[in-house]
Amino acid sequence: MVDVVVVGSIGLDTIETPFGKVQDALGGAAVYASYAASFFCKPGIVSIAGKDFPKTHIALLEKQGIDLSGLNISGKTFRWQGLYEYDMNEAKTLKTELNALQEFNPTLPSSYKDASYLFLGNIDPILQLQALQQMKKPRLTVMDTMNFWIEHKREDLIKTIKQVNVFLCNDGEARELFQTTNLVTAATKALALGPKFVIIKKGEHGALLFTESTHFNCAGYPLENIKDPTGCGDTFGGGFIGYLAKTNDLSEKNIRKAMVYGSALASFTAEDFSLQALRRISMQDIEKRFHAFREMKEF
Amino acid sequence: MVDVVVVGSIGLDTIETPFGKVQDALGGAAVYASYAASFFCKPGIVSIAGKDFPKTHIALLEKQGIDLSGLNISGKTFRWQGLYEYDMNEAKTLKTELNALQEFNPTLPSSYKDASYLFLGNIDPILQLQALQQMKKPRLTVMDTMNFWIEHKREDLIKTIKQVNVFLCNDGEARELFQTTNLVTAATKALALGPKFVIIKKGEHGALLFTESTHFNCAGYPLENIKDPTGCGDTFGGGFIGYLAKTNDLSEKNIRKAMVYGSALASFTAEDFSLQALRRISMQDIEKRFHAFREMKEF
Repeated sequence: MVDVVVVGSIGLDTIETPFGKVQDALGGAAVYASYAASFFCKPGIVSIAGKDFPKTHIALLEKQGIDLSGLNISGKTFRWQGLYEYDMNEAKTLKTELNALQEFNPTLPSSYKDASYLFLGNIDPILQLQALQQMKKPRLTVMDTMNFWIEHKREDLIKTIKQVNVFLCNDGEARELFQTTNLVTAATKALALGPKFVIIKKGEHGALLFTESTHFNCAGYPLENIKDPTGCGDTFGGGFIGYLAKTNDLSEKNIRKAMVYGSALASFTAEDFSLQALRRISMQDIEKRFHAFREMKEF
Repeated sequence: MVDVVVVGSIGLDTIETPFGKVQDALGGAAVYASYAASFFCKPGIVSIAGKDFPKTHIALLEKQGIDLSGLNISGKTFRWQGLYEYDMNEAKTLKTELNALQEFNPTLPSSYKDASYLFLGNIDPILQLQALQQMKKPRLTVMDTMNFWIEHKREDLIKTIKQVNVFLCNDGEARELFQTTNLVTAATKALALGPKFVIIKKGEHGALLFTESTHFNCAGYPLENIKDPTGCGDTFGGGFIGYLAKTNDLSEKNIRKAMVYGSALASFTAEDFSLQALRRISMQDIEKRFHAFREMKEF
């Protein structure tokens, strides 16, 4: 039995930033999200990887307590190559090889279908909905997305948004999807579609939570040494839902705390390449950073 | 006797945004800053305006309790014409007529020289220093700047920064001045120059305070209806120093509160053109918004 079902990509990333380079490093939304969630509860991945996916990566995820019974192995692993230049806020995609991801058809192991928490990473919204519909009675469903789906599958995306409890996206995506530069307007439009909670991620500027009547501003952690921001958004999402699954408390107060835990975890991810920083940290480090978030908000 | 000396420009702004247009409206850094400060204490302006500067504007400022004995009247008033397009985050300058501002030479009335608080709006750093040197024993000096001075008078700017207690700028300016995209690095470099407090304004994303050992993240207020962001940064600065002058408490805790009051005031400024929103509000409205800032950061 898993606590959180994480649906999304698994990939091998080749990334260059002003601070270094990695080749074929462990990556993908499902990996970052499940690894972040694993600090709080037992996640299970629904994804696809190729036959070339290193056994050491499988071993790493299993050692972290991540269930892989929903992982399909077929063909060649999805690969992404990206470059961050001086301004680390945006990656330039140099190459995308979808490979196995092209035939991804999320099928939940029967043991996953009773889970209470579902995280839908930024894959095709049709597949997200397909995964969602396999869940028997989820208590909380969270979906992420990306500009590609806004531009190419807008209607399907809207259809999926209508079915989830928490809609997660970044500020650029929110502006693009709802055709407004104003994030409050965008969030209001997203809420009108159905989700009870809308979270807009703003990278270094933190994240915003909107409900019908309230607003929470979650700060970004002030990092001087950012090595590689890849996976921060997915780490945020995974930490967020992982903490909620652990506490099983969906009050807005706890949703806010979950966002801070998600931000704390994401801040570690940015400090090194791939999952290297997440692999180094303990629950104590996370708690310490969580308290730093408190201190920097007090007035 | 004034509580805060505000040095800076007075101007007549012609502004167009997607939500309307104003012509020759009251503006300028010293106007926004002193008006914001006037909610908390008695500010005095050191500035220059032309003979064409409407008497109604003078009357408005005086009615608000702003001392104008440091206001020089000569020639024609400084005029700025700007356009905000769909993305309201940045103004496009259409026309600048410096007029009287070209001969601005800040001379403090002797009654101002004993004031404890000094706000230096974004004028030529040489003039900022000149004004600063006329103060007998200020308790707190705050300076703002803008990209023009970073690009054209970098050395003089650095020289002035070394002499103030609080250095204020926006994120783009911080990145440009310290040649880094990382705001923590920029703030660290600014602190190394001398100021005890460095505040980086980030528009809708709020403002950051850095000291040698602590960090405060002040949220931006979520506004759905932004009509005109002109003067928000100056309003923030004026509200900030005005609250500090009123409380005369320079503990970091109070500096944080002052930033929240500054942000609350700035959020009103954005809701209408020129000083129209500031003119409508009462201390009660400000307190209400201050408490909204508390609620949106609680977790």
